[in-house]
Amino acid sequence: MDYIDGGITAAKGFLASGLHCGIRKNKTKPDLALIYSRQECKAAGVYTQNLVKGAPITVTKKNISNGTARAIICNSGIANTCAPDGIEKAEEMCRIAASVLGISQADVVVASTGVIGPSLPTEPIRAAAPALKEALSPEGSLAAATAIMTTDTFPKEAAVRFTVGGKEARIGGISKGSGMIHPNMATMLCFVTTDCAISTDMLQKAVKTAADATFNMISVDGDTSTNDTFVVLANGAANNAEITCEGEDYRSFVAALTAVGEKLAKMMARDGEGASKLHICRVEGAPDLAAARTIAKSVISSSLVKAAMFGSDANAGGRAMCAMGYAGAQIDVDKVDISFSSAQGAVQVVQKGCGVAFSEELALRVLGQEEVTTLIDLHMGDAFAEAYGCDLTYDYVKINADYRT
Amino acid sequence: MDYIDGGITAAKGFLASGLHCGIRKNKTKPDLALIYSRQECKAAGVYTQNLVKGAPITVTKKNISNGTARAIICNSGIANTCAPDGIEKAEEMCRIAASVLGISQADVVVASTGVIGPSLPTEPIRAAAPALKEALSPEGSLAAATAIMTTDTFPKEAAVRFTVGGKEARIGGISKGSGMIHPNMATMLCFVTTDCAISTDMLQKAVKTAADATFNMISVDGDTSTNDTFVVLANGAANNAEITCEGEDYRSFVAALTAVGEKLAKMMARDGEGASKLHICRVEGAPDLAAARTIAKSVISSSLVKAAMFGSDANAGGRAMCAMGYAGAQIDVDKVDISFSSAQGAVQVVQKGCGVAFSEELALRVLGQEEVTTLIDLHMGDAFAEAYGCDLTYDYVKINADYRT
Repeated sequence: MDYIDGGITAAKGFLASGLHCGIRKNKTKPDLALIYSRQECKAAGVYTQNLVKGAPITVTKKNISNGTARAIICNSGIANTCAPDGIEKAEEMCRIAASVLGISQADVVVASTGVIGPSLPTEPIRAAAPALKEALSPEGSLAAATAIMTTDTFPKEAAVRFTVGGKEARIGGISKGSGMIHPNMATMLCFVTTDCAISTDMLQKAVKTAADATFNMISVDGDTSTNDTFVVLANGAANNAEITCEGEDYRSFVAALTAVGEKLAKMMARDGEGASKLHICRVEGAPDLAAARTIAKSVISSSLVKAAMFGSDANAGGRAMCAMGYAGAQIDVDKVDISFSSAQGAVQVVQKGCGVAFSEELALRVLGQEEVTTLIDLHMGDAFAEAYGCDLTYDYVKINADYRT
Repeated sequence: MDYIDGGITAAKGFLASGLHCGIRKNKTKPDLALIYSRQECKAAGVYTQNLVKGAPITVTKKNISNGTARAIICNSGIANTCAPDGIEKAEEMCRIAASVLGISQADVVVASTGVIGPSLPTEPIRAAAPALKEALSPEGSLAAATAIMTTDTFPKEAAVRFTVGGKEARIGGISKGSGMIHPNMATMLCFVTTDCAISTDMLQKAVKTAADATFNMISVDGDTSTNDTFVVLANGAANNAEITCEGEDYRSFVAALTAVGEKLAKMMARDGEGASKLHICRVEGAPDLAAARTIAKSVISSSLVKAAMFGSDANAGGRAMCAMGYAGAQIDVDKVDISFSSAQGAVQVVQKGCGVAFSEELALRVLGQEEVTTLIDLHMGDAFAEAYGCDLTYDYVKINADYRT
């Protein structure tokens, strides 16, 4: 398996585009994206567990329920959530996309991201639809990735090439963060395409497995969005024997999908609102996977750990102990070792549950990097997990104290 | 019942003091407090549910296990948590206090707050103990409240006078916040005294009831501390017939204890690290108390709601819907009404689960006050609850990015 360029258009037969249609007032920020497959696709998705769900999720679930889809339309600027006409507007977006593409409305996946509450105007979408279709291109991934951004500071694309049943296949995707990010079952808008042939059942299973290991291990601010959506379209253009059960081919597919997911997940964490660094928490020696994941996620979610990361303050060690203690996993706190590592080296700060002396100078150097890993060894078993977060900065507060202006 | 002055020395027979002993380098910040009862007390407490527990909690639980105590010693600056000699140092603090007071070491409650990890030096405490005892005074509440502060910006005291069994009794307390505040079963250091006669069993029950309604409903940053402690000493000096069962006297006592707790809890939330305002979330029309509490606490804990509160941005309404949706309580989101109120009026932002038009100017005026209430009506039943939080500001980040300097 290799990482390759091309994002959501890396897989054979997929086209994408993005442009400014006018939902956002700022004309320099594209706000409408379209993704299209030349042939019918198997489709699967996972969505937010929030009881308050965006209307596009309801419509997407219905359209995807037969296991197939062929296009994705997504706007940024307004979330189309908690609006009285939400379902109507989401259906209208599907109708508009289906009309210009000449496909069935029931084959369209729809998503929205932005402010919760306002009614979504669909006139700008209708007016821009012909140009959006015209712009569809096998090099359109970046334009689509840019159009789905909200407070993101960079577009997020990832793709891999792998071998399945003797054939070369590809998986690629785009995603957006970067606030209200604490996914539960899925993540805030991630679209992935693949030319691998795979049945809907196996695709759904793979999506869930990959989401649990990647997007569900990110947190920017502990807020689970109303619109989290992770959808994969598989068009079979790689001509491999369709994956219909577990086995070597399925494992190759899950590994490739997880690799794409992990890369996008790390990008989302690194680009968390206001973030200046990516914080990875790796928990080793855990009694089971659930405990490892629970603890890793608790540590990267702690406001106090996040603020200490911003300050490159080794006090993060004691705060990581604290966040581990309230995580909810049953562990033996007297066995825990904690150290920090980065491109500048490593420094141990906790041994057998107690603080140890360390060089403040070394700690400052290690923590002062753009990517820092907190390594927690529980010394209880063989399970491990990683979670992805970021630091808490003045800019997070600034962005969110006045989001709408 | 009336609120009165006097804090932890409002009840008959209690003395307190506070001074700078040298655990903190800053000589202008007192760091050692002592509370003493002229007679033996019934004692009860609730403590952090964090698996990582401060050593003072282990020692206090042991000393309080026979249901009696007579003094409380508490330092700020170092938390005496995750230190290899923690138990030894906590025992030493009790021994020092017992020695100068001429009481049994097993009658001393001990607590510490500050940085997690370092070993606590007890020499400064031993050296200051005679002066600390000498300074004990029935007007000493403020000195003790000041000595237990860490990043708190003001000392927190509250007291009430009430009638029980025909006698006047008093309950008063002090507490400290103001970061790592997301109490579970108790709160970060609250000490309460009362001259009401009450059995240990009934006192323990009252403490738990009051804590659930007050301190367990605060959140500053979602981090449950390792050292949360809420201890009540009752010396019986009011000469009421001892409360030994539920009934009118017990209800009066719980109401008075809850009133003291609520006042201290609101002060802790208002003084959350970096906070510029107190944010109260009141949930009404809930199917049961648990649902009301879960939702109220989820809303005041949301980083996005907190940042919107800082910016006086009515976008907090949509974010409150979101935080309600992931809270974990089963509710009907299509029935929910949300409004904001403060000294400047009220403004409705959500009706039947959907955003409604409102005056931005009015919303800005309402949200721009020092105390803002988010009122959520679930229209499902009669239960209600309040939770207490604060806004998320640049200063929270500043305080926690570099706590130790």
